[in-house]
Amino acid sequence: MANITPRTKDYSKWYLDIIREAKLADYSAVKGCMIIRPNGYAIWENIQRILDGMFKDTGHVNAYFPLFIPKSFFEKEAKHAKGFAKECAVVTHHRLKDVGTDTEPALVVDPDAKLPEELIVRPTSETIIWSAYKQWVQSWRDLPILINQWANVVRWEMRTRLFLRTAEFLWQEGHTAHRTFEDAEAEAVRMLEVYRTFAEEYMAMPVFAGKKTEGQKFAGALHTYTIEAMMQDKKALQAGTSHNLGQGFAESFDVKFRDQDGTEKFVWATSWGVSTRLIGALIMCHSDDKGLVLPPRLAPVQVTIIPIWKSQEERRAVISYADKIITRFRDQSIRVKIDAREEYQPGWKFTEWELEGVPLRLEIGPRDMAKEQVVSVRRDTGEKSFLPLEGLEGVIKSTLQNIQKSLFERAKAYRDANTVCLKTLAEVQEFIEGDGGFARVFWNGGKTEEEHLATFNATIRCVLPNREDTNTGKCIVTGVDTSNQVIIAKAY
Amino acid sequence: MANITPRTKDYSKWYLDIIREAKLADYSAVKGCMIIRPNGYAIWENIQRILDGMFKDTGHVNAYFPLFIPKSFFEKEAKHAKGFAKECAVVTHHRLKDVGTDTEPALVVDPDAKLPEELIVRPTSETIIWSAYKQWVQSWRDLPILINQWANVVRWEMRTRLFLRTAEFLWQEGHTAHRTFEDAEAEAVRMLEVYRTFAEEYMAMPVFAGKKTEGQKFAGALHTYTIEAMMQDKKALQAGTSHNLGQGFAESFDVKFRDQDGTEKFVWATSWGVSTRLIGALIMCHSDDKGLVLPPRLAPVQVTIIPIWKSQEERRAVISYADKIITRFRDQSIRVKIDAREEYQPGWKFTEWELEGVPLRLEIGPRDMAKEQVVSVRRDTGEKSFLPLEGLEGVIKSTLQNIQKSLFERAKAYRDANTVCLKTLAEVQEFIEGDGGFARVFWNGGKTEEEHLATFNATIRCVLPNREDTNTGKCIVTGVDTSNQVIIAKAY
Repeated sequence: MANITPRTKDYSKWYLDIIREAKLADYSAVKGCMIIRPNGYAIWENIQRILDGMFKDTGHVNAYFPLFIPKSFFEKEAKHAKGFAKECAVVTHHRLKDVGTDTEPALVVDPDAKLPEELIVRPTSETIIWSAYKQWVQSWRDLPILINQWANVVRWEMRTRLFLRTAEFLWQEGHTAHRTFEDAEAEAVRMLEVYRTFAEEYMAMPVFAGKKTEGQKFAGALHTYTIEAMMQDKKALQAGTSHNLGQGFAESFDVKFRDQDGTEKFVWATSWGVSTRLIGALIMCHSDDKGLVLPPRLAPVQVTIIPIWKSQEERRAVISYADKIITRFRDQSIRVKIDAREEYQPGWKFTEWELEGVPLRLEIGPRDMAKEQVVSVRRDTGEKSFLPLEGLEGVIKSTLQNIQKSLFERAKAYRDANTVCLKTLAEVQEFIEGDGGFARVFWNGGKTEEEHLATFNATIRCVLPNREDTNTGKCIVTGVDTSNQVIIAKAY
Repeated sequence: MANITPRTKDYSKWYLDIIREAKLADYSAVKGCMIIRPNGYAIWENIQRILDGMFKDTGHVNAYFPLFIPKSFFEKEAKHAKGFAKECAVVTHHRLKDVGTDTEPALVVDPDAKLPEELIVRPTSETIIWSAYKQWVQSWRDLPILINQWANVVRWEMRTRLFLRTAEFLWQEGHTAHRTFEDAEAEAVRMLEVYRTFAEEYMAMPVFAGKKTEGQKFAGALHTYTIEAMMQDKKALQAGTSHNLGQGFAESFDVKFRDQDGTEKFVWATSWGVSTRLIGALIMCHSDDKGLVLPPRLAPVQVTIIPIWKSQEERRAVISYADKIITRFRDQSIRVKIDAREEYQPGWKFTEWELEGVPLRLEIGPRDMAKEQVVSVRRDTGEKSFLPLEGLEGVIKSTLQNIQKSLFERAKAYRDANTVCLKTLAEVQEFIEGDGGFARVFWNGGKTEEEHLATFNATIRCVLPNREDTNTGKCIVTGVDTSNQVIIAKAY
């Protein structure tokens, strides 16, 4: 059996055990930097492919901007500088020199190769991108600019956790430029909706979509929007953010345009991003004590076929039987893999593929062949069925859809059962320090009241959107009537 | 008209003009680092998509390794250290501190945040990857490892040129681990063949595929294989390399496996890569004085439709006519775009899309509608045709195939016309210093003779593969009979 600590025993160990045993990632020789192994990277490739399609469908194009940002660029936007300068990788030299021998080199920093200005390895790219937009924008005709970048970024975190918080991570960052506040606001909200759709429909992960408070918003933003998901330990995970950046970056980098009315105006900005953190969210949302559980729409392998044989003759027969099934599956774009390795027993393979989170396992032995059937086992429920060969691809497709749906429903039921409406700050504290979960409360407090939540390690995760049907209630800290509702929780 | 210097006047200015006017890339605020603009990046996305498919079809998977490499890792492989240490970005600190005010930050390197060991921004990833393989390989069962990485790398070049040589560039690097020399050699050759196929069948760019000489091979390699293309100025461009790395990295990082015979052995390595340099190759291979020329298989937009109208009524009618064509094209996976902008005249649009290299332009006006036809103009030849609406998508598909084929043939004819077999070193020098091109010669020389070629700025680009039908001839420097033929040329 796989070496996985049960969730109930040690949640955080369980998480790392899954990552190790399912071969998703490793720590590297460089402190805080991870290696994303092929099993983990294949999930990221699916995330990229799907999100990239959604970005393009909403009119965006991709581009690539430099890894390095001159130190002075950070100084131009004060809040941004304060937000990122404390944890960044600084390049100071452009050469090493060898003071060793031909066979045993000894490299030292060459003092003659000091850079005139230090370069920061990008923690995010607003500054370098807005310095380019300065060159590209003159007239209202040049707007909007709807650009996305897939890239690596570095934030020198002291306490790291694989996928959730690492010194280097992979992400996408959208950076758009607009004529008006309204256009930028609409873009920020549109991209939040793309993230919500992706989280719920592809990751099968229910989220609350809302706005960050003043205290929690991005360094340099006017508004920050967020999607927040509940993990199985009832903590919140911020899974994606979208910012209306106002005109701050345009002012810092002097990006103006001549509008239709002939006047010069500063450009409005947004940025939005999700990262390899989503893989951490995926693990913590669905997996169990047997290993990873992947929603079919993101699973690199959706169906694994385990042929069962006693003799070589039987082996050849079941593999040839399976090959015909594989062809039919591939024609239907079902991602299928056969595990015909001779050095492992079927039981070992069952455990292995459960561990790696493949949604559906098919077992095929000589008896199944004779009956023109296959045995199917669902990863999420363990449910076993005997499925006739005829029309099998249709049944498998709908089973995968069922698994996708039921993972979402299970996660939503869990989240809803652990989201409670509370009336007082004392209740919130008791709830958070007790079983934990999402506290949904009326809130009209300011920065001081919000900072108080830190005394019990909670934060406001988001302000829920005001809907017409929302009742008003008394703010749990000020007592005044408000229609503002927020989610309070502990968070990753 | 676009502002492009003719090739004959100033080839190198022509190249940069194309990049600027077709909006492919820009220099950034960081010395030597480029911004790949959406038009350029869309070409890279097509390159990535196609190559990634070819890598997967040959059994490879993707993964991601850290951006940073500890300095000591370079010291472990002496040749590698010497090859890369002289031009690398060195991270020495992990924090800046703000010595300014709240509104005017002034950031300085925090001396308390000095790293215990300097980190190098990867110029290539052999060392960090082999330190990981050390953890992953114990038995022959763990081999081969067939991993590829898509990543950014940094080499601090002093003289840069957009796409061809920049401080940061994007690439893919395959890193594989094998049981035997033969397996590694077969892999290196297989991947060279993938590159050759990609260059010729997708980029429409003929290449010589061969081996590098001892003097020209990769720092740390046993054998380096290369594909070499001829640009329109008759210089060679190295477009992709594949290395049999022998056991050097395995020895440096102590990566051993227990073989089937029970003995411990060092693992054999390969690496292989192509980069955004391919975009530079694409430009210089096919483009002309009107702008970019793209082969249809890599063109982000294959067909552009320019509707022509006088009244708003006509405008609505031609756009609706065009929309039906677009739907039919998309059903056939033809990448099509309509340019219905009202603020530009058709003539301006023709020039613009020629500049951006779209292989085929369709013009549709009211008269064409009445005749149930479209006007088609080929980017490569300027040839104009009237095509009936019926069966149009089939004709367009085959025209695109023709363009692809004829670009290859034109480039091959040009290369072959400028590749000459020569008998003496003096002839080679005269040829290189005169009209220039590829000198194909018998060669049996050593390092000294090879270094002599530098006196007229030439290098041996590759040793051609020995084929049974190859004659022997006298080496141009030693005079001895040999079957070794090499290509000598000036190179980028």
